[in-house]
Amino acid sequence: MELSWDERGLLPAVVADADTGAVLMLAWMNREALALTVETGEAHFYSRSRGRLWRKGETSGNLLDVREVRVDCDGDALLVVARPRGPACHTGKPSCFYRTLPGLAEDEGPRGAPAA
Amino acid sequence: MELSWDERGLLPAVVADADTGAVLMLAWMNREALALTVETGEAHFYSRSRGRLWRKGETSGNLLDVREVRVDCDGDALLVVARPRGPACHTGKPSCFYRTLPGLAEDEGPRGAPAA
Repeated sequence: MELSWDERGLLPAVVADADTGAVLMLAWMNREALALTVETGEAHFYSRSRGRLWRKGETSGNLLDVREVRVDCDGDALLVVARPRGPACHTGKPSCFYRTLPGLAEDEGPRGAPAA
Repeated sequence: MELSWDERGLLPAVVADADTGAVLMLAWMNREALALTVETGEAHFYSRSRGRLWRKGETSGNLLDVREVRVDCDGDALLVVARPRGPACHTGKPSCFYRTLPGLAEDEGPRGAPAA
């Protein structure tokens, strides 16, 4: 399958929980991280800040057991469907996306559409 | 909330279905796209290939009614929780992630963990 690696040789990889579907985190993969993920069934990423390959959970033990890797229509993003062995976020939260940006008032219901 | 825009002034934005939790697509936001999204409640992105702001569904009518924008622990990725008015993918599929990369045998069960 054709993948469109960016100019750094990376692709963004969204991680979703295989059981709940919840979005757990977003990280980056290079070719080696993707190959290791497929080969071992454990998620590997490339850390842009540390400039090195990274086996998710190598320190915390919170590995991601990968069930499936999906590719988007343009081949420039990955979706890693996985079972987390512990909290996916280094803060200890199940998901890295635990903060909501202010501004959108969810209580008002969907905008531009009648309330359900 | 502090956001870590990349050197291009962009952040990756994962879109998840507000009702099912399914990951629909990944696109990019610049500051203007994010501001317009929060202001209008309709998802706006920045197209890297076209080099311009883009209101999702402006051609197809398949807008994304945004319920919430979440930020990850590092402030360098966004999660847009939205109700899609139609298929999110330009191919007509509900999600852009409709292809599975070969190599991981899901039928074998999770690796490195006992079967449930």
